[in-house]
Amino acid sequence: MNICELFRARKKMDLHDADAASKPLASAGKTNDKSEDKLQVVRLAERIAGYQDVFYAARERKLLVVLQGMDTAGKDGAVRGVFGLIDPLGIRGVAFKTPTENEREHDYLWRVHKEVPGQGEIVIFNRSHYEDVLISRVHGWIDEKECQRRYAQIRDFERMLAESGTVLLKFFLHISKEEQKQRLEERISDPDKHWKFDPKDLAERQYWAEYQQAYQQAIQETNVDHAPWYVIPANSKTHRNLAIASILVEVLEKMQLTYPPANPDYVKMKVV
Amino acid sequence: MNICELFRARKKMDLHDADAASKPLASAGKTNDKSEDKLQVVRLAERIAGYQDVFYAARERKLLVVLQGMDTAGKDGAVRGVFGLIDPLGIRGVAFKTPTENEREHDYLWRVHKEVPGQGEIVIFNRSHYEDVLISRVHGWIDEKECQRRYAQIRDFERMLAESGTVLLKFFLHISKEEQKQRLEERISDPDKHWKFDPKDLAERQYWAEYQQAYQQAIQETNVDHAPWYVIPANSKTHRNLAIASILVEVLEKMQLTYPPANPDYVKMKVV
Repeated sequence: MNICELFRARKKMDLHDADAASKPLASAGKTNDKSEDKLQVVRLAERIAGYQDVFYAARERKLLVVLQGMDTAGKDGAVRGVFGLIDPLGIRGVAFKTPTENEREHDYLWRVHKEVPGQGEIVIFNRSHYEDVLISRVHGWIDEKECQRRYAQIRDFERMLAESGTVLLKFFLHISKEEQKQRLEERISDPDKHWKFDPKDLAERQYWAEYQQAYQQAIQETNVDHAPWYVIPANSKTHRNLAIASILVEVLEKMQLTYPPANPDYVKMKVV
Repeated sequence: MNICELFRARKKMDLHDADAASKPLASAGKTNDKSEDKLQVVRLAERIAGYQDVFYAARERKLLVVLQGMDTAGKDGAVRGVFGLIDPLGIRGVAFKTPTENEREHDYLWRVHKEVPGQGEIVIFNRSHYEDVLISRVHGWIDEKECQRRYAQIRDFERMLAESGTVLLKFFLHISKEEQKQRLEERISDPDKHWKFDPKDLAERQYWAEYQQAYQQAIQETNVDHAPWYVIPANSKTHRNLAIASILVEVLEKMQLTYPPANPDYVKMKVV
């Protein structure tokens, strides 16, 4: 079965709260009980860590993973669960926050371009240039015309990256409004999670419908084969990690990575 | 028992090949059989990952870990073994390679300063500014006078970092010349490791005695309480990881990190 296909954003799609609780992998007979699923995530994470070593050694490709989602959708958790077993020197995570003054003085792709992966590198974007067609659009900082211009710019930018050897995978972690409510309440009440709570999240939550609309449009406008969007139902953390990890393994497996061939001159060398 | 003390570089010390095979933790009754020791490393790595979460949440300190050692000493392996379970977004690894043209046009601390940790961040240096008093000294690119000047500059730089809230831990991974021979031979003959082999390592190996001398001097000149050097016998990979992980846990434990207190205004907030 093609797992990538299972989660690939459809050409015509509507983001519904109900979908956030769905479990396509369960329907496909790819899940078991929860503890077995969690173990499967660990096994996939181990395989991803193994692939990373060859990926780095081969130095042929670049891998850019983009994670987007509403607050509390589980972007950090997905990074931990799926990429947590990779050698810390073999992966770079970049969290894009509110732009600094210096960043605002440049075009919105400037700070993003600086962070894209080099040969053999795996980079995870926690939020990305997509914020500039999401929060910016929702709050009316840009109008529809500018938004359309940016979709085209993003398509151009990502095509250039792909043409330069970058494998792009974009994940939208889809939670329901009710699920976000529970997670925000947990952040408020749990002393170990309280530090993650930001009252601004409550303000943004008021724009739920607008965000869903903005996501839907952004995904549809930029969902191309060389930079595909995957819509990951994320109400269940385990199913979320299982889905992302399965996609990663499928993609990395298809690359048929191999260690570079031995240099015949080196093989003869003696260590004295 | 104070594990930091056990590995702290002595004021007067001689680096001997024999020490590279020693196991201070075994002498202290802190080891078991190899598989049990490996499990202990995993447990310590889990604790370190747990501390990182609070470390980040508290945003009070900065942690800089410097790893130095001869080629094949196990710097990458130590990062994987000790820090491998930390959230990839919670740690940043920086490998300092041969300086670029742009880097060479600046002072040697310039590229290093850019990478030091911010509040709540953990950064691992795989090689560091110490190369500029090691390889540079061994090959005579700088003379003794300039080397002395740099020791003073490094002391000043690290004191400034410490005074600004940075916890500095510096590890010298100590292997013997014979152990390096075996590891280089493995890189030459093992197809999965061959890509790591660099014939330049054979050239550097010819300067073994000079490097030991340079390390010894650099360590003694910069081994201060706010930026201590730990000499880690590294012929055994398991003991190496166990030693580094034990020191990390001891240091992080002493910090008595706690999640920041709840904001009383936030606690009352309702999610609608």
